[in-house]
Amino acid sequence: MTQPPPAQRATACRAASRELVAAGGEARAQALRRIATALLDHRADLLEANQRDVQAAAHDVRTGEVTAAMAARLPLTERKLQALADGCRTLADRPDPVGQAIARRELADGLELTQRTVPLGVLLIIFEARPDAMPQITSLALKSGNGLMLKGGKEAVHSCRALHAVITEAMAPLPADAVQLLEGRDTVTELLALDDRIDLVIPRGSNALVRHIQAHTRIPVLGHADGICHVYVHADADPAMARAIVVDSKTDYPAACNAMETLLLHRDTVASGLADQLLGALRDAGVALHGAHGVFGLPEPPSLAHEYGDLAATVALVDDVDDAVAWVNTHGSGHTDAIITPDPAVAARFVQGVDNACAFHNCSTRFADGYRFGLGAEVGISTGRIHARGPVGVEGLLTTQYTVRGQGDVVAPFSAGDRVFTHRDRPLGER
Amino acid sequence: MTQPPPAQRATACRAASRELVAAGGEARAQALRRIATALLDHRADLLEANQRDVQAAAHDVRTGEVTAAMAARLPLTERKLQALADGCRTLADRPDPVGQAIARRELADGLELTQRTVPLGVLLIIFEARPDAMPQITSLALKSGNGLMLKGGKEAVHSCRALHAVITEAMAPLPADAVQLLEGRDTVTELLALDDRIDLVIPRGSNALVRHIQAHTRIPVLGHADGICHVYVHADADPAMARAIVVDSKTDYPAACNAMETLLLHRDTVASGLADQLLGALRDAGVALHGAHGVFGLPEPPSLAHEYGDLAATVALVDDVDDAVAWVNTHGSGHTDAIITPDPAVAARFVQGVDNACAFHNCSTRFADGYRFGLGAEVGISTGRIHARGPVGVEGLLTTQYTVRGQGDVVAPFSAGDRVFTHRDRPLGER
Repeated sequence: MTQPPPAQRATACRAASRELVAAGGEARAQALRRIATALLDHRADLLEANQRDVQAAAHDVRTGEVTAAMAARLPLTERKLQALADGCRTLADRPDPVGQAIARRELADGLELTQRTVPLGVLLIIFEARPDAMPQITSLALKSGNGLMLKGGKEAVHSCRALHAVITEAMAPLPADAVQLLEGRDTVTELLALDDRIDLVIPRGSNALVRHIQAHTRIPVLGHADGICHVYVHADADPAMARAIVVDSKTDYPAACNAMETLLLHRDTVASGLADQLLGALRDAGVALHGAHGVFGLPEPPSLAHEYGDLAATVALVDDVDDAVAWVNTHGSGHTDAIITPDPAVAARFVQGVDNACAFHNCSTRFADGYRFGLGAEVGISTGRIHARGPVGVEGLLTTQYTVRGQGDVVAPFSAGDRVFTHRDRPLGER
Repeated sequence: MTQPPPAQRATACRAASRELVAAGGEARAQALRRIATALLDHRADLLEANQRDVQAAAHDVRTGEVTAAMAARLPLTERKLQALADGCRTLADRPDPVGQAIARRELADGLELTQRTVPLGVLLIIFEARPDAMPQITSLALKSGNGLMLKGGKEAVHSCRALHAVITEAMAPLPADAVQLLEGRDTVTELLALDDRIDLVIPRGSNALVRHIQAHTRIPVLGHADGICHVYVHADADPAMARAIVVDSKTDYPAACNAMETLLLHRDTVASGLADQLLGALRDAGVALHGAHGVFGLPEPPSLAHEYGDLAATVALVDDVDDAVAWVNTHGSGHTDAIITPDPAVAARFVQGVDNACAFHNCSTRFADGYRFGLGAEVGISTGRIHARGPVGVEGLLTTQYTVRGQGDVVAPFSAGDRVFTHRDRPLGER
């Protein structure tokens, strides 16, 4: 089938996103419930389409066209479909995030200001492998009233088509133009040029994909290229707690962006034997260790800011908590960093000193996640400082609109001093 | 004096911004009060420095190097310095916006999440003429704990130097590196390339300046290039109210971004005579009128999305409120648009339909302003949808950091089903 050019489709997507808002929160919630049901009803078709991708990828891994890591993320399973359906239903049951008053103020007698949440507009999601990212992100976009331009990788083309067909059919009567699937090699370049029609790009894939997108668009990009997370073990850390957190942070899912890449040890942990215990525990868990500046006689890491994404880590010695903070702010990526210490004053110094999205005390870096944070689900984790930072759920897909209701008010009498601003904050109350 | 290159200065600025946070809200408030006093104590020096710029500009207007509009914005006065000092004191008295908890949640038994406000980091302000913008923006940056790189126009160089010297001296012991003044022709290009060290650019000046900056940097830009504001007069509008709002919106300050550029009239206002009354009132106020598609026999406007910034306006006829919404969404700039009608249902259709930062009902577009909205002061008005939208005060200069406090918690038992997330929202309470 021939599709209109991306620019035209983005315009249609914006018009459809306005229909999503006009339809109301309950209509969008019901669409999410119908999508949940449809994902399970059509499981046979979806898994069959996915199998075509999985088999093609197995071939393409052999020829080197697809990486083994991408191929590993490709398979859909009945369990994944069930989790996606559950996620849609949970999201449907949450309060409507759109149109919520977040500020109300009397500006002057009879002049009332309200600031309300509204959707961003049109989101562009570019993802690799992981076909399950598609229904998940679609559900967050629908919930928040945003239009969606989806661009999946060629390796997931059959899965994406099948999922898209099921989703848009189940959404009706909400407009199918609100969720558009784009294909083709040139489309990404064209899409990234549409900064007048697309409000936010969310890349879901490798660091290389994110960097490529950041370098090739003027559309704001939500996400992170690097996840160089640190765990700092203070001299007084409880050995058992330190061992558990360090091993969990590194080994629970080494490819995740919130996995530990660098272990920072207080110098005194050498004499106390804690350093040896921790290195031993990591080695026992199969972790290959590198030593910054050759500490512990370990091989040098590729750099002091290296993301292994695998069962490997850098170990470094620091003089104290301030030195640890300086290390994190120099070599970290502003994602997630943790301190282990029983001392609340030292912990506060670390938490307030590190310039990152998530600063943890006495827990694993692996908790940095939208679901674990109770956001329902996440569109991604942002290491940017503008707009949303850290795990981003539905709230990160909203902006606001100010409305003022007057009774014929003009500014001239205020300038003349005949009327004055009162600026009385009001309770948020109802919509 | 020789200054280090901009990249090095931006790095020093970030380090200094961290000192601003560490110093605490009360230290920053006291610095604001000292700046207020210093601006008045040094008024003679400041006004003298300003006079050098004003005289140079008078010469440069004659040679065409400086526009008359820029020259008109250049003069400082004793009254302006008093207003700036008052603004600093008002801001000093407001609660500290940094470190405020905006969400708290128990993730699981003993595992506590807090989301707190933190400064963005380093702001780059590029402004033309208007030396009074400098202390105003500096006060907002100090209040919010942000470092500031200031680049003023050549036409205000003596004023900026004098203001900068007074401000940084009064700030001590807060680090002077937190407020840096940059000069020189090439510096803007260098600064705009520092997307790894500068978090937000705020241009304050002409539409051309804003567009140039938006086109030449990967740093997020807060602001607006265009202010194409509409007033839509519904068929049932009260004539006296419509007259007052239309005239105020256009003539109170025609060069402002929130001034009306296009008057949308419901077709029925022609037969009722309201259209004639409104056009007459605008003409009486000295407004030159243009007719979209030649309505009322008026000359065609340069385009249907023209910002006059002067005593001139476009008039257009629309069929109904939906047609007015479609017009605004097609030709507007997403800034501020108002409807005049006694009918709340029609007003709601307009307010919810227009895709803009500020949607007004029965009041002048001129109310779209940080001070009038009760934000204290504004760094600018954003027509972007990412980060802050509409008039932006101190809150728009903040991002957040998540912290989690645990007791040795790791994710493995959650994955295994031995522990469960509780996700109980907590009262925000104290810090």
